[in-house]
Amino acid sequence: MKLVFKIYGVRVVALFLCGGILISAAQSVRRNGPTMADVLAASKPGDWRALDPENTLYVEFASGRVVIELAPDFAPRHVANAKVLAREHYYDGLAIVRVQDNYVVQLADPDAEKPELARKIQRAQRTLPAEFERTLDPKMTFARLPDGDVYAREVGFAGGFPVARDRRGGKMWLVHCYGMVGAGRDNAPDSGGGTELYVVIGHAPRQLDRNVTLLGRVVYGMELLSALPRGTGPMGFYEKSEQRVPIRAIRVAADLPESERTDLEIMLTGTPAFKELIESRRNRREDWFQVPAGHVEICNVPIPARLKSPVGQ
Amino acid sequence: MKLVFKIYGVRVVALFLCGGILISAAQSVRRNGPTMADVLAASKPGDWRALDPENTLYVEFASGRVVIELAPDFAPRHVANAKVLAREHYYDGLAIVRVQDNYVVQLADPDAEKPELARKIQRAQRTLPAEFERTLDPKMTFARLPDGDVYAREVGFAGGFPVARDRRGGKMWLVHCYGMVGAGRDNAPDSGGGTELYVVIGHAPRQLDRNVTLLGRVVYGMELLSALPRGTGPMGFYEKSEQRVPIRAIRVAADLPESERTDLEIMLTGTPAFKELIESRRNRREDWFQVPAGHVEICNVPIPARLKSPVGQ
Repeated sequence: MKLVFKIYGVRVVALFLCGGILISAAQSVRRNGPTMADVLAASKPGDWRALDPENTLYVEFASGRVVIELAPDFAPRHVANAKVLAREHYYDGLAIVRVQDNYVVQLADPDAEKPELARKIQRAQRTLPAEFERTLDPKMTFARLPDGDVYAREVGFAGGFPVARDRRGGKMWLVHCYGMVGAGRDNAPDSGGGTELYVVIGHAPRQLDRNVTLLGRVVYGMELLSALPRGTGPMGFYEKSEQRVPIRAIRVAADLPESERTDLEIMLTGTPAFKELIESRRNRREDWFQVPAGHVEICNVPIPARLKSPVGQ
Repeated sequence: MKLVFKIYGVRVVALFLCGGILISAAQSVRRNGPTMADVLAASKPGDWRALDPENTLYVEFASGRVVIELAPDFAPRHVANAKVLAREHYYDGLAIVRVQDNYVVQLADPDAEKPELARKIQRAQRTLPAEFERTLDPKMTFARLPDGDVYAREVGFAGGFPVARDRRGGKMWLVHCYGMVGAGRDNAPDSGGGTELYVVIGHAPRQLDRNVTLLGRVVYGMELLSALPRGTGPMGFYEKSEQRVPIRAIRVAADLPESERTDLEIMLTGTPAFKELIESRRNRREDWFQVPAGHVEICNVPIPARLKSPVGQ
């Protein structure tokens, strides 16, 4: 059977999660260096980190769990507010109301614009000052990509997230790769706060960078969002209430007993192993490839994740 | 309700299809130039072209029709062979066998590797010489993007497709944007031919450029592919036969009576109107945007399509 990407003469040694989906990690014939599968197979326990349960959200659907790693280094107020919203059960019973093909899924209170029906907020904030970018921290390890970027002066990985930097302007910001999670807003920059969240399900809409606050990334369960039926209304909104996908709950992982957590490890992005992984994506060494690209775009570098133990739930 | 992309103070004047999905075309407040909606609303009949029914494939599912525009200027032998395969009903009864999240869907003969069961070929070719790139034709109108590209020396649009060029090497080739259609192959470069087709459903896997033959683009019905359940086997293959999505038929549009065709028009890419559209994507003028990017990547420029009349089927 012909494959777009076929691993030949390989021995599958482990299953890893990349961008939330299973890939085969295999040892293959080397061609001027290791493949990504080789890098993963050769990685040491110290190349991985556990998710911080205090900065991890579980979005529970009837179909399963989506795990979001929050990014307090980039959007501290939005992250804190999303946790308060989760802990006061604001999200429980809301729904996916919009699925726009090659763009975003969005969760919201379907009654947000009906004052008498809209979900009430208790201790959380409804809106917050924008956190579109932050001051560049030169001490934060930055795995810079050598091939440049169409949108930003510099791109790379910092703290486990895809990041752009502008050293002249002294700023850094999260970029809108596949799976990134943001806080929807109205026209005013300070009108977001986390009551509506969106997730990128298509080609990176980089025009949104520095226009809206990103606060995390889906690290598991992405296919529960990306395979949802597309909405047929303008901008992908579901036109009928029964099309909406109910959210049972959003929980901070730390609030669940350990036995109910999804035990994930994420590959560290500041290590020599991750540099090797980037190189394995810049020049594909699998036998299938005839012309290694010699370049890689930020959103084509996966940040691998793996399950440490069977999923608790 | 907070929106990632919200059009305020607008009057919806028409519905267009972009990348296969409906968007609202609206007239909005101008901010240093027209928005994409303005460009579409102001477009003249001469800014659009009908699809050539002789180079259009209809992929018929129980859920509806996917329309593929073929690219004979870039992959003449693969296009011709795919049409022969369609006309000898090779594809009818095959299935989507693979859906890999953020990568591709793939249709194939599930029994391709069982000689006694594999679908027979009559007049078509099973394999063809690779058509990964072609000689650069300087006479072919090329709407060059001004912002460069991570992977290629030059990118832009030619003949209605996203294209990269290398003037020094004298080559041009189709690029793997969302919705592009290619011919799966084994390890040998000449092992493809169109018996297995894949469609990009995620962030542009540009590492595939010049490694596999692209022969067209989905211009309608993309959501019938992109929202399919992801396969749970390695590389997104469906693990059980009942998960596969049957293909009723693939037809050349010209072989259907006009009343059964999907009457689509595609925006011409060599016009001043399309240059304006590119500019409207480089710098977003909608009120929602705080920081126009000032740049755009090739796969973030939609090639608009619209229905001329109600869908025949």
